[in-house]
Amino acid sequence: MPRSEPIGDAGDPAAASPSAQYRSTRALTEALVGPLSDADASLQSMEDASPAKWHLAHTTWFWETFLLRASAPGYRLHNPEWPFLFNSYYEAEGARIDRFARGMLSRPTLEDVLEWRAAVDDAMTPLLDDPALVGLIALGVAHEQQHIELLLTDIKHALFQNPLGPAMWGGRPPPAAPCAPLGWLEHPGGMALVGHQGDGFAFDNFAFDNEGPRHRVLLEPFALADRLVTNGEWDEFIADGGYREPRLWLADGWGWVQREAITAPLYWREDGYFTHQGWHERDPNAPVTHISHFEADAYATWAGARLPTEFEWEAIAAGHDPAGGNQIDHAAPPMPRGAAGLFGDGWQFTRSAYLPYPRFRPAEGAVGEYNGKFMSGQVVLRGASCATVRGHSRASYRNFFYPHQRWQFTGLRLAKDVTT
Amino acid sequence: MPRSEPIGDAGDPAAASPSAQYRSTRALTEALVGPLSDADASLQSMEDASPAKWHLAHTTWFWETFLLRASAPGYRLHNPEWPFLFNSYYEAEGARIDRFARGMLSRPTLEDVLEWRAAVDDAMTPLLDDPALVGLIALGVAHEQQHIELLLTDIKHALFQNPLGPAMWGGRPPPAAPCAPLGWLEHPGGMALVGHQGDGFAFDNFAFDNEGPRHRVLLEPFALADRLVTNGEWDEFIADGGYREPRLWLADGWGWVQREAITAPLYWREDGYFTHQGWHERDPNAPVTHISHFEADAYATWAGARLPTEFEWEAIAAGHDPAGGNQIDHAAPPMPRGAAGLFGDGWQFTRSAYLPYPRFRPAEGAVGEYNGKFMSGQVVLRGASCATVRGHSRASYRNFFYPHQRWQFTGLRLAKDVTT
Amino acid sequence: MPRSEPIGDAGDPAAASPSAQYRSTRALTEALVGPLSDADASLQSMEDASPAKWHLAHTTWFWETFLLRASAPGYRLHNPEWPFLFNSYYEAEGARIDRFARGMLSRPTLEDVLEWRAAVDDAMTPLLDDPALVGLIALGVAHEQQHIELLLTDIKHALFQNPLGPAMWGGRPPPAAPCAPLGWLEHPGGMALVGHQGDGFAFDNFAFDNEGPRHRVLLEPFALADRLVTNGEWDEFIADGGYREPRLWLADGWGWVQREAITAPLYWREDGYFTHQGWHERDPNAPVTHISHFEADAYATWAGARLPTEFEWEAIAAGHDPAGGNQIDHAAPPMPRGAAGLFGDGWQFTRSAYLPYPRFRPAEGAVGEYNGKFMSGQVVLRGASCATVRGHSRASYRNFFYPHQRWQFTGLRLAKDVTT
Amino acid sequence: MPRSEPIGDAGDPAAASPSAQYRSTRALTEALVGPLSDADASLQSMEDASPAKWHLAHTTWFWETFLLRASAPGYRLHNPEWPFLFNSYYEAEGARIDRFARGMLSRPTLEDVLEWRAAVDDAMTPLLDDPALVGLIALGVAHEQQHIELLLTDIKHALFQNPLGPAMWGGRPPPAAPCAPLGWLEHPGGMALVGHQGDGFAFDNFAFDNEGPRHRVLLEPFALADRLVTNGEWDEFIADGGYREPRLWLADGWGWVQREAITAPLYWREDGYFTHQGWHERDPNAPVTHISHFEADAYATWAGARLPTEFEWEAIAAGHDPAGGNQIDHAAPPMPRGAAGLFGDGWQFTRSAYLPYPRFRPAEGAVGEYNGKFMSGQVVLRGASCATVRGHSRASYRNFFYPHQRWQFTGLRLAKDVTT
Repeated sequence: MPRSEPIGDAGDPAAASPSAQYRSTRALTEALVGPLSDADASLQSMEDASPAKWHLAHTTWFWETFLLRASAPGYRLHNPEWPFLFNSYYEAEGARIDRFARGMLSRPTLEDVLEWRAAVDDAMTPLLDDPALVGLIALGVAHEQQHIELLLTDIKHALFQNPLGPAMWGGRPPPAAPCAPLGWLEHPGGMALVGHQGDGFAFDNFAFDNEGPRHRVLLEPFALADRLVTNGEWDEFIADGGYREPRLWLADGWGWVQREAITAPLYWREDGYFTHQGWHERDPNAPVTHISHFEADAYATWAGARLPTEFEWEAIAAGHDPAGGNQIDHAAPPMPRGAAGLFGDGWQFTRSAYLPYPRFRPAEGAVGEYNGKFMSGQVVLRGASCATVRGHSRASYRNFFYPHQRWQFTGLRLAKDVTT
Repeated sequence: MPRSEPIGDAGDPAAASPSAQYRSTRALTEALVGPLSDADASLQSMEDASPAKWHLAHTTWFWETFLLRASAPGYRLHNPEWPFLFNSYYEAEGARIDRFARGMLSRPTLEDVLEWRAAVDDAMTPLLDDPALVGLIALGVAHEQQHIELLLTDIKHALFQNPLGPAMWGGRPPPAAPCAPLGWLEHPGGMALVGHQGDGFAFDNFAFDNEGPRHRVLLEPFALADRLVTNGEWDEFIADGGYREPRLWLADGWGWVQREAITAPLYWREDGYFTHQGWHERDPNAPVTHISHFEADAYATWAGARLPTEFEWEAIAAGHDPAGGNQIDHAAPPMPRGAAGLFGDGWQFTRSAYLPYPRFRPAEGAVGEYNGKFMSGQVVLRGASCATVRGHSRASYRNFFYPHQRWQFTGLRLAKDVTT
Repeated sequence: MPRSEPIGDAGDPAAASPSAQYRSTRALTEALVGPLSDADASLQSMEDASPAKWHLAHTTWFWETFLLRASAPGYRLHNPEWPFLFNSYYEAEGARIDRFARGMLSRPTLEDVLEWRAAVDDAMTPLLDDPALVGLIALGVAHEQQHIELLLTDIKHALFQNPLGPAMWGGRPPPAAPCAPLGWLEHPGGMALVGHQGDGFAFDNFAFDNEGPRHRVLLEPFALADRLVTNGEWDEFIADGGYREPRLWLADGWGWVQREAITAPLYWREDGYFTHQGWHERDPNAPVTHISHFEADAYATWAGARLPTEFEWEAIAAGHDPAGGNQIDHAAPPMPRGAAGLFGDGWQFTRSAYLPYPRFRPAEGAVGEYNGKFMSGQVVLRGASCATVRGHSRASYRNFFYPHQRWQFTGLRLAKDVTT
Repeated sequence: MPRSEPIGDAGDPAAASPSAQYRSTRALTEALVGPLSDADASLQSMEDASPAKWHLAHTTWFWETFLLRASAPGYRLHNPEWPFLFNSYYEAEGARIDRFARGMLSRPTLEDVLEWRAAVDDAMTPLLDDPALVGLIALGVAHEQQHIELLLTDIKHALFQNPLGPAMWGGRPPPAAPCAPLGWLEHPGGMALVGHQGDGFAFDNFAFDNEGPRHRVLLEPFALADRLVTNGEWDEFIADGGYREPRLWLADGWGWVQREAITAPLYWREDGYFTHQGWHERDPNAPVTHISHFEADAYATWAGARLPTEFEWEAIAAGHDPAGGNQIDHAAPPMPRGAAGLFGDGWQFTRSAYLPYPRFRPAEGAVGEYNGKFMSGQVVLRGASCATVRGHSRASYRNFFYPHQRWQFTGLRLAKDVTT
């Protein structure tokens, strides 16, 4: 997706009412699928991805399951068979279809799902201002915002499978401004406070459970690059044989490169790449995206640097405004890239494994399955991408993927040790 | 698909003009996809199957490639990128997408493909009465009729993946008449003439290349059952432990049963089965279908019988009218089942491997890839199913599948040795 | 294995007593493993192959199970746990280990197994002259002779996995005589009698059940090549792009070539090939071996010929002496190659699927699992290879493998249609 | 392996000369394979494991490659083909055979390899007292000690595949003393120093590169269990449905349980388990071993506890004598279990991912591949098992495996948060 492509604005969570938040997020989801046919919205290109229609339905299932069934007296399921289809991974909520069978759901139709959405929105109306539910509503909004990003990356992957290279939107990605030479932001190390401060979900201070508890960490002196690695720099890595030199790679990464015959980031072909607007010439000044953790690590080694830890990243980012980033916005003109491009240019790999913070405890019940059970084998990414909903970003945010995955807008900001 | 469900009538090839044949077949294809949405028509449930939309397009590609490009002066491809998408397996006709990627083609849309069909139909009009092309046109009609059957079996398999069990058509399958006890049709053996007599493709005497040359075979005395095995009889096989007794099975079949945990025909669940009309109670009097060659062979062993050879079947069928069968017809009332149910109750497994007849030679050029290169590892089925287009059947017809495949309407007619 | 390498002589079944047959076959098995260490004899290189030690044990299990347990009063199993280890595929004889776990049997040791062999030989002595058992003994001898060939091909495959290319025997393969240009043996066609005449297993007229019943077949006029295709001729096929031209291949074969990146027969590397005597320069005059059915078929198409049917082969071979072939012999000097090289130069692919003859019925009991249950998906090979025990060959013999398998000494004799 | 089974003593690295260390370690390796035949020593049961013979050879390759070729003037390779066979993963040292092909090496024989070992030992003699080499020699000794443990766990896994359950050693595991109820060792939290202090490899202060640099970490107050979880306690977890309750498991762990049908630790069957001494009744008082990280995590959740971080473990262990553990010893009587059983009862899973310490830098050259490139996707284990060589243990030692692996002697010590 081009960095300045309009995807809409879910509003500012700190400023808007729960009701406004709910409505703007729901509307954004639907606006984004506007260009999609039922057939487009039914495509599933791999087990990691889901059809756009499934995202539309699953986010609706969330409201129906965790809000309406629990708190709307007399609420009857819109369709009693659909929870089985649109539960994602909540074991506590019962059986669900095989993940890879999501692509077989031509029924219910896109229109059916949109009707369901409207019906749920109606039923939700009286609940949106209930103070007892505000935490769950804030969670539901954040959940739907996460699925907006997945919807966008999943449909990109699905359209990419089509040799015709169909575009979701017209036009072409605007060129990035020429990059300055890479600079470094130094940090003296020492004790830092990281993680989100707060108790549970709240609109005016929202965070997921995995972002807390807030705690102290020790940092050695380090420096963080002042911008992300660009496509043009990645071309140099390729030209220098980066994908053919085993010593640059983690052992698992080298195995992956050989097994999958990897020679470039996902979506690259010769001088072009695939975007939501179809195939276009690559922009050398734009941040490289769609790389795996293995590739990010190899590049850093090649560059004589390393990946930052998630806390090094957070220590630098803590003073920056996540709203200043480069997210996509329906109405507003594209934002100038932030001084450090921390939010909006791409998720930035860290070297940190996705693990619980000290004294982390998952919530009770099904909501407790939200994050904790995925804390195995994945790596943390920080920041935000062009597909992240404006207002969904913050310095404590922890995104996580397996080290080989790269269908997200994943990029790279280098770090290095500093001697003081 | 219920045995009497209307699928339309492609007309009688011996009676109608090439032009009428062409038009009725093309119209039948389109009539059948009438109930399908674009999303339905884009589903691909396994590598063996193709989306309905792909069948619509591939049959159109056939006319464009083998007729219009070759014989219509000045013809321009409707879309130069589509041949790559809709070539099936003709190596001589260039590259094509991976078979399993057919399910990723949300574009072109169903509407786009129907427009292409109309445009090709227009362009074909002046060619339909050209005597020099009549053979290729007859082949194209037969080819499209084959894809009609595949379209029906593939969409059935795709809809079956959906836990909602969506129906393609309303209503319910009509009950089969109660079965008489199994009787046997004896044949004294001796020299028989088998295979199709004729030279090449012709409307009034059409056959595929694999049905010839006509040649003599020696038969030992044998008997062929006078009807197919029924669902009710198959229930007895199951109840007697048929799926748990290795001695009934070919070694490869037993491996398949264990690896795939097979315990019943495809589409069976408890007392019901999945049809084009959704889930319904199984009809004990209807012929069993959706069994593999392995299952057919095991049942025959259990029943103290065996599968017929393809020539035993043909020797009995030679005197029967293929139009007397039980095919599905839009306009006419369902036909009474033929005395022997040879055509229309289900494809009937033989014990014969799919191999070339003596002196068989594939045609030159891409059309020569039609049949010959598949003569390895497959078994011959004879007869016709309820999804076979009326007029497409004949006693010399050879259908073929791998021994584990069972998403076609495949059934079983027993045979046995006779001592004279 | 070089064509003239001594492997011993199991004697002439028509001339020797059951007792002598038994003893010479058992001794041959043991002589062949003489050069193998326990570790060599424990290797299993793929699921299709078994360790040499397993062959030694399984053939002994056969005698113990079908002769001693049934007919030796008071016989006690040498070790009650071993039948579980060394049953091959006889479902009727109870559980057995996974086929691929055979390579995990470092215990019992080679020495243990040889002791078992000696103990069984002792126990068998009083039974060898019992007229009531002569059929089963003849079967057991033939069974062990089959395993001798498998032992030789399996150990070749296992040693080939070792980058050191260890030789089982010293020396080097003797050069083949220069080949005459290919000639053709014409046959006028007509009615032929094929298959083995006889009732059951007998020493003086032995055949497996799958070779009968003897029956008539109709043949069209044809010609069979008077020798096998050579390595030198295969080089021409490769040089002409044979492995890169899809039109030469069966569809399944072309899939196999691409999936497995096949570019030459098994065991070929540059100008050399791997033999039981280690790596050596290829002999252009020697018959090509270690090809799959797919390769044989593609070569025949390239050569403008075809594979023979099994009955065409048998009609030509019926008048030839199987003992005149080129088998390997411990004592005698290598035999001159037969006029037609029918036996001893390599198993010769036919285009025939491995199917039952008319009125074939498997024997009752476990012995009935010997052949019939494998009649699915395999192709028939005729003749004999250099690894076939002398005396084990006959014109009616049917060997069978899957079309992709090629670790046997499999070769190719061309056929073609003849117009009379 | 029984906890008190003699495996020999590699001596005390702090007390003995490099020469003595070298000799005692080399002798221990060879003493351990004393009971193995060449066939036993050639077995490879899975890709994760290697044949015993391969371990014998690989450790010898290490000395030849990194010491003799570099530092012994005029040294000629014992066999120039063997480095290809016995390189493990050092990309810098050139090509090597596929990991899973190690089980195909019946040649060189066990005797050949033992001769190679003797020859290398001879060639090493003049180098052992060279002060310039002492670091590399210390590394080589530690490397060989690691392979001793792998050799023991790999051969156990290989023998387990054999349905006969062969024992490597006679006798039976001695019973463990009855366990006291679980107690907790509290730690007040605060700043702790962790990691190894030292510069490079040295005999008197040896550590691997991944154990440093020494650095400060912050700990929250916590408690560590005073002993490992026992078999008897694990039986309670099973009886309570631990393997059937998804909410206890990490998502990847639950997928693994279902895909692999896991219902108990590896090597368990009913009331018994497989040991180096064959099948025996399980000892309820012995620490549970052969569990995966997924199982350890699920048990901890079930028990209302959690896994410790690697630094919590180290903070407790730092004051304990690793020589006081329960390792196996040829000569000495079994040691009483340490107060906390930190060393010798089993490797103890932590919740820490295996990642580089701050300012970690791999060494230059091939030795730099020793540890760093594996820092992805694995978890840290601390302590030592009964198969760890005495003298190889220390509080800073970091072992690492993938979360599903469990063929090592892997166990579990619980931790919990403490409120101060």
